Amino acid sequence: MSFAEATAVALRQDGEYSGEILPGWDVFGIASGGYVMTIAARAMGMAAQDRELVSITGYFTNPGRSGVVTVQVQPIKTGKGFSTFGAEVTANKRPLVSVIGAYARPDRKVGGTTIVEPSFDLPPPDECVQAIPSTDGPLPPPLTDKVRIMIHPEDAVGLFTERAGPALVRGWFRLLDDEPTDPLSLVLVADAFPPAVFTTDLGLKWTPTLDLTVHIRNPIPTGWLKCRFRTRFVTRGLLEEDGEIWDEDDNLVAQSRQLALVPR
Amino acid sequence: MSFAEATAVALRQDGEYSGEILPGWDVFGIASGGYVMTIAARAMGMAAQDRELVSITGYFTNPGRSGVVTVQVQPIKTGKGFSTFGAEVTANKRPLVSVIGAYARPDRKVGGTTIVEPSFDLPPPDECVQAIPSTDGPLPPPLTDKVRIMIHPEDAVGLFTERAGPALVRGWFRLLDDEPTDPLSLVLVADAFPPAVFTTDLGLKWTPTLDLTVHIRNPIPTGWLKCRFRTRFVTRGLLEEDGEIWDEDDNLVAQSRQLALVPR
Repeated sequence: MSFAEATAVALRQDGEYSGEILPGWDVFGIASGGYVMTIAARAMGMAAQDRELVSITGYFTNPGRSGVVTVQVQPIKTGKGFSTFGAEVTANKRPLVSVIGAYARPDRKVGGTTIVEPSFDLPPPDECVQAIPSTDGPLPPPLTDKVRIMIHPEDAVGLFTERAGPALVRGWFRLLDDEPTDPLSLVLVADAFPPAVFTTDLGLKWTPTLDLTVHIRNPIPTGWLKCRFRTRFVTRGLLEEDGEIWDEDDNLVAQSRQLALVPR
Repeated sequence: MSFAEATAVALRQDGEYSGEILPGWDVFGIASGGYVMTIAARAMGMAAQDRELVSITGYFTNPGRSGVVTVQVQPIKTGKGFSTFGAEVTANKRPLVSVIGAYARPDRKVGGTTIVEPSFDLPPPDECVQAIPSTDGPLPPPLTDKVRIMIHPEDAVGLFTERAGPALVRGWFRLLDDEPTDPLSLVLVADAFPPAVFTTDLGLKWTPTLDLTVHIRNPIPTGWLKCRFRTRFVTRGLLEEDGEIWDEDDNLVAQSRQLALVPR
């Protein structure tokens, strides 16, 4: 089953969509936040018609489990260049995530790319370490079977053995069967890698996301996505994780930031 | 008039608050997004009772002008540790900004501060350049009269004369009359400095914010706030601006990120 199918929604009535959290897209038994947010983004995208996702934020309120979900989409503004939508994903009337997203006209005037920090080095995918589900423990999680995540060998050492790393995880991402990545896939990517603090001594435990924002910065070609996630500050039980997602030609395609609770 | 008074709201009926965008809090005639978001945060904070703001995101839909605004607050979840609220600020039924915020129990277990990148050097406030409203042009904007912003001399050169800088603005912030800064003030701070790209050759024009997120990372003591704003990527007419807000003792009190349109 493709990622597009695994996040599909159907219009039930005006502004109300149904979807399903499928088994297997989980970490510690809880559906990946990026996966659940993608279901919301897909419903908002249907409401946004031909406009494309530029920016999306989700605030997570309850853990998602497999089963049917409802997405209520509320149009907030339809402008000349941008449209804004809100969405609420619920399961049995329990809120899972509250989302706002901005969608833009694909043919809007966009200007050039004028300021770009350089990308970073990452060995080719076949020299990286693939994350595959553990057969005797919770990590790597079942989610890693649904996508291809190839981790930088240096960071894999930090993740799996030494755990004294600098809160940095780099790696390649690709959907299965070379399914093309669209802007919605980036929401998944932003939440699919092991938390960068898993390379530190904070523990390999549940690291629940409070909120996640993804900014789409360029069109996404086919191929591997080159990803880097970092945490710079762990304060009062909270940590931010900043992500960059690049294409194979070192164009920045997205940035992400999430605020999460320290592993517990 | 204090900042607290300038962003005050009154409960009108269940979930509905009224406030006012006051003249003078504007840039190019448009109310500062951080200022308008603070009005929403204040209404959500009244609904959140004794819980304190941890994380807030606003998506801007129409420019705010001085006048009465309505804030509709929607409780999304009240949890043991965190509560989540949505809010919509409207003026004459026109949406200005859609907001989601997470508020936390102040007495929750928070853990220690374990990972912190170092802060940065900034000359003391009296060796910095104060931003004051221009008498013959739009910049610095009227907003700078409502707060105290002292800009790093090096960045002031980049802002006002050479404009070949690295998209970096550092400076001190303080409310007038030593009014204490609370978490809500940080929402203002995150949007009050000149855009970091004003040190580059992109032009000193309106740089509208699409969305803004502020994460509160530590309690805020009185005194000056030490701020740094940077832009690393300008792509397809979009730029991110990342902010860090520190206290005088180099504790990180907040992080911010906004996605904005290139000056136009």
